[in-house]
Amino acid sequence: MGNTFGHLFRVTTWGESHGPAIGAVIDGCPPLLPLSEADIQPDLDRRAPGQSALVTQRKESDTVRILSGVFEGKTLGTPVSLAIHNEDMRPGDYREIQQKYRPSHADYTYEAKYGFRDWRGGGRTSARETAGRVAAGAVALRHGVEIVAWVAKVGAILIECDVDAVTRAQVDATPIRCPEPDTAARMIAAVEAARKDGNSLGGVVTCAVRGCPPGWGEPVFDRLEADLAKAMLSLPASKGFEVGSGFAGTELTGREHNDEFYMDGDRVRTKSNRSGGVQGGITNGETVYFRVAFKPTATIMSEQHTVSVDREDTTITGRGRHDPCVLPRAVPMVEAMAALVMADHALRHHAISGK
Amino acid sequence: MGNTFGHLFRVTTWGESHGPAIGAVIDGCPPLLPLSEADIQPDLDRRAPGQSALVTQRKESDTVRILSGVFEGKTLGTPVSLAIHNEDMRPGDYREIQQKYRPSHADYTYEAKYGFRDWRGGGRTSARETAGRVAAGAVALRHGVEIVAWVAKVGAILIECDVDAVTRAQVDATPIRCPEPDTAARMIAAVEAARKDGNSLGGVVTCAVRGCPPGWGEPVFDRLEADLAKAMLSLPASKGFEVGSGFAGTELTGREHNDEFYMDGDRVRTKSNRSGGVQGGITNGETVYFRVAFKPTATIMSEQHTVSVDREDTTITGRGRHDPCVLPRAVPMVEAMAALVMADHALRHHAISGK
Amino acid sequence: MGNTFGHLFRVTTWGESHGPAIGAVIDGCPPLLPLSEADIQPDLDRRAPGQSALVTQRKESDTVRILSGVFEGKTLGTPVSLAIHNEDMRPGDYREIQQKYRPSHADYTYEAKYGFRDWRGGGRTSARETAGRVAAGAVALRHGVEIVAWVAKVGAILIECDVDAVTRAQVDATPIRCPEPDTAARMIAAVEAARKDGNSLGGVVTCAVRGCPPGWGEPVFDRLEADLAKAMLSLPASKGFEVGSGFAGTELTGREHNDEFYMDGDRVRTKSNRSGGVQGGITNGETVYFRVAFKPTATIMSEQHTVSVDREDTTITGRGRHDPCVLPRAVPMVEAMAALVMADHALRHHAISGK
Amino acid sequence: MGNTFGHLFRVTTWGESHGPAIGAVIDGCPPLLPLSEADIQPDLDRRAPGQSALVTQRKESDTVRILSGVFEGKTLGTPVSLAIHNEDMRPGDYREIQQKYRPSHADYTYEAKYGFRDWRGGGRTSARETAGRVAAGAVALRHGVEIVAWVAKVGAILIECDVDAVTRAQVDATPIRCPEPDTAARMIAAVEAARKDGNSLGGVVTCAVRGCPPGWGEPVFDRLEADLAKAMLSLPASKGFEVGSGFAGTELTGREHNDEFYMDGDRVRTKSNRSGGVQGGITNGETVYFRVAFKPTATIMSEQHTVSVDREDTTITGRGRHDPCVLPRAVPMVEAMAALVMADHALRHHAISGK
Repeated sequence: MGNTFGHLFRVTTWGESHGPAIGAVIDGCPPLLPLSEADIQPDLDRRAPGQSALVTQRKESDTVRILSGVFEGKTLGTPVSLAIHNEDMRPGDYREIQQKYRPSHADYTYEAKYGFRDWRGGGRTSARETAGRVAAGAVALRHGVEIVAWVAKVGAILIECDVDAVTRAQVDATPIRCPEPDTAARMIAAVEAARKDGNSLGGVVTCAVRGCPPGWGEPVFDRLEADLAKAMLSLPASKGFEVGSGFAGTELTGREHNDEFYMDGDRVRTKSNRSGGVQGGITNGETVYFRVAFKPTATIMSEQHTVSVDREDTTITGRGRHDPCVLPRAVPMVEAMAALVMADHALRHHAISGK
Repeated sequence: MGNTFGHLFRVTTWGESHGPAIGAVIDGCPPLLPLSEADIQPDLDRRAPGQSALVTQRKESDTVRILSGVFEGKTLGTPVSLAIHNEDMRPGDYREIQQKYRPSHADYTYEAKYGFRDWRGGGRTSARETAGRVAAGAVALRHGVEIVAWVAKVGAILIECDVDAVTRAQVDATPIRCPEPDTAARMIAAVEAARKDGNSLGGVVTCAVRGCPPGWGEPVFDRLEADLAKAMLSLPASKGFEVGSGFAGTELTGREHNDEFYMDGDRVRTKSNRSGGVQGGITNGETVYFRVAFKPTATIMSEQHTVSVDREDTTITGRGRHDPCVLPRAVPMVEAMAALVMADHALRHHAISGK
Repeated sequence: MGNTFGHLFRVTTWGESHGPAIGAVIDGCPPLLPLSEADIQPDLDRRAPGQSALVTQRKESDTVRILSGVFEGKTLGTPVSLAIHNEDMRPGDYREIQQKYRPSHADYTYEAKYGFRDWRGGGRTSARETAGRVAAGAVALRHGVEIVAWVAKVGAILIECDVDAVTRAQVDATPIRCPEPDTAARMIAAVEAARKDGNSLGGVVTCAVRGCPPGWGEPVFDRLEADLAKAMLSLPASKGFEVGSGFAGTELTGREHNDEFYMDGDRVRTKSNRSGGVQGGITNGETVYFRVAFKPTATIMSEQHTVSVDREDTTITGRGRHDPCVLPRAVPMVEAMAALVMADHALRHHAISGK
Repeated sequence: MGNTFGHLFRVTTWGESHGPAIGAVIDGCPPLLPLSEADIQPDLDRRAPGQSALVTQRKESDTVRILSGVFEGKTLGTPVSLAIHNEDMRPGDYREIQQKYRPSHADYTYEAKYGFRDWRGGGRTSARETAGRVAAGAVALRHGVEIVAWVAKVGAILIECDVDAVTRAQVDATPIRCPEPDTAARMIAAVEAARKDGNSLGGVVTCAVRGCPPGWGEPVFDRLEADLAKAMLSLPASKGFEVGSGFAGTELTGREHNDEFYMDGDRVRTKSNRSGGVQGGITNGETVYFRVAFKPTATIMSEQHTVSVDREDTTITGRGRHDPCVLPRAVPMVEAMAALVMADHALRHHAISGK
């Protein structure tokens, strides 16, 4: 259970890291949207391993194939099935994992839950699972809102950007996906240093959703920010979510924090946007923005204490391919999950409003 | 839509602030649990307004009545219907809201979404809605894990507590619900000052869930922390969620952050708990803990710019009863939502494991 | 679990026959629909006991109260909570049920499932539970399609009606709710005879849904007829469902059975309607019609063999108030469930089509 | 929407008749079940076209591949992805369908709903879609209850069988899948005659579920028989469902119909089983049995009136491969859907009972 996301635009992902394939099925995709593999592949390529020295060197072409739901270049309204075959599988790299639980990985918890696990590359716990999400997100993005995410922090190196202004071109200009070149350079240097040291870094991704009309979101439990929070905390290695002013906003007073309304022509707008584009769980027409914390990658190239599957204390040393910093690859994952949330809420709002 | 929470232990809340009543229906509550109104009322009393000068002076006895699902003091396995009648309703206090949108409230977004709103006390957007959640949470708490939340921050005043040690008695010893008396006193003084100034404060609630066995949580989308994040961001005024090391953990390296395993008798444990009791979305047997950010209360006693329902620029000044700081009342809300998540995941895990 | 029906127009019912109240919560009701208790009460009155000598003599005014979701005579888009207080409760009538399982009732199965049951009047298994459905159905009926059901068969007495022509006035002209007066008289006589004999009768309700546009229904699992079948088999005492030509259609050849298309002005229509208004799970614009089989009421006034809760063979004799024939009261139940299905599918279709 | 079935054991099917592949994803399959392609293929072979002259001559090997969720011969608890590649695709056979709506097919309704359709072999509306269900059902069958279905009626030729006694070997002894050889011979002759005449026949499948313990089923809406009814009416060409005494039972009196209880050793049993193994929506430990009506195949080899996509009256004559009688191939489909319902309810019951 738990492998389906969304209420009307529903995505189910499947697949283990070293099984024959991974993929996703989208149920609820509206008909008549232009769609081909070429619309999906670029997002997958952004998520793929091996793009730069900053990320894992696993070689996967991550070629997506559409197996259903599209006919003559348009969606049918039937389920869209997407599959990506796994290629560069080296189970031999992972024999030690069969016998020992990697610290801060999910080896132990999967075994505790299911009594069984696929130890090859982490199986279902691998970040490889997110390829299915990214493919589905590329379909969801056909819904009209603009979604741009970027790396806002690596370790202690951070940057504040104007959430209304950052472009995808700026983000993709550097392999670290930070839109400010100087900061990007410092982040890259930090990741390189961590990689050489066999260590890893965490950070924060900021995401902006622009052009969303007022009225999306379903109080009380399915508030837009609640579904975004769930979406983001479902990503591997994520540890936090904040929308609008977030944790920093707790230090402001109400007088400082409130977003006053004003008329901008015939449009109701707010002078500030500490709300992050949502009030009471419903969009107000301003940019929705939020931040997601990612912990440092758990795989490190040093010896750590752990226990074996036979319940004995032992040690383990990371080997194999890994990401010294998951942040650059997290950018398309965050965008994809945001797209799934927005597409779902668009349909939910259409259901009662016809808009 | 969006008023139901949970997959197997399902809670639906209903009710407007100034309608005849508010309540909740729990579907999926297992049979044979001892339950009476006396088990629920204490949690409602902790959430109720009028407990101290720190919170709104609305007078509500918040007396819960069980209308179904319980027979001879035990749950039947059928839906448990809970109702609380509204008493202290003064719609007259709210006439101005009928004409103007309060800044950083949901008046405008509800009208944008539904084309219509109940302006009396905020209607469904009122924090009063959470009484239904707290009542349902009291039922969910019968599932065996221990849940304790406390105020960890008010404005800039903060405290770090041992998440394994804080007791409910310590929390409830002061009206601000901070377990450390000196810090509590400073927080209370800050809230009092804000109230006198017609201003408001935000803060952070920390919550610990203890005694949860390994294996709860449903990857990949319904990870335990993802459902907790959704639960918390569905609370009024919440703006952020972090589990374990959270945002601060992004500044650590992998070597510093990883939780090494060791054997504690026949139990697999971790030396540190930066994971926050979850790895890969599944509990590992350590204490689950997380933090929730709440913005300063939007209602303040000063004049602010806004627009009218007729789309004209105007001003509005807060009046009526309000909370200068939502934090003390947020504590039982956070506990209730955590209880709903844990009860749901307990049942989901039973379904496949028999445990 | 299992007390919620629908995907977007969601109804949760609650309540035991002899508890304080029964009711329903509707989540997903669109805003701005005119609604008051006076819109709901007539349907409840049609379902209520004590209307004629044909049905149980339990006295219940079944007065519905709207507790939320309506403001100034219109729906808010928030949950609509409906409650009906129980009045004529005589638990003393039911003491024997506490000790023995009534044949073909659900006493034994509830105890087998939950380890516990409310033996007062059948608790949740009572047909009284359907009052919540009927109330919710009255709200759902505000969606525009016309729904008329009638008693088509009592015991072996049956009638074939034109599904496009039967009116509610014809149906309600007799207490048996059969639209053809002579057949109605014969059915009434048969029920009276069964009642005097302490026996009971079953029958068939036919239901027509008119005015539904083409395009409603969600293949492959949520076909309109699949959801109607589920809705009808969820009614107490129902044992069968057939749509269009149903079981009788299995004796026709394809050449005899097919519904040929023709143009009626600019509208695509079928010459016959053996499909029952649905093809491939989607409405085609013709009248949707179906039939529901109800078994004879299980409560009879004669001695029957059974077993006790102590697992001993014994006998039981029906007493208390009961329906010698559930059919007349089943008519509003069938209409209500049909209305819930249609409202849900209307919203689901709006979500992708804007229509 | 609507391509997922089940609440805990959840199956999503995808695929068009003449697209690259069809398949299913199972989410919620418990871990540690032995599973390989060899466990699934036999059920697919029973459903496959081309088995005898009685069914369509399309040649499909229907070879299933497991793409995820199984490791070292056992289920992992993660999603099981099943794919079947389409082979014998002759879109050319279907050019006429592109221009005209086939009577009693779903060509028109799909176009009405989605504004677009895959006209190649019916696309998603093809019975080929059920291959995914049958594959998933084979996995669900690993849950321990015994499910046997058979053809009980073809046209007007019918047989009554002992639902406790029919074996799969008897069923599969003839290509018509009727367990009584003489009746089978007559049915086969009737289907042959219909085929030669370019005509088609309908019929009834009866299904028995044996060995189900008391207590499965979730009142009030998710009664076991309600979910079975939905499952069966979701099958292509099905028009009716009845459980236990069904429509015929409406002609009995309560005295004749009731199932009296008695003790059979320490087990509570019923002397008759007109209830069909369910009372109040919950199993009572007797055999669950039900019947499903299938209309005659809509494709016939004669000229029929219809309309074109340009909204002009015209005629169409069936051509291409088709089933003169869907009944033999419906048997494994009915069993598969029954298996999905039972597996889902088994898990739902485990969740609250630990059994």
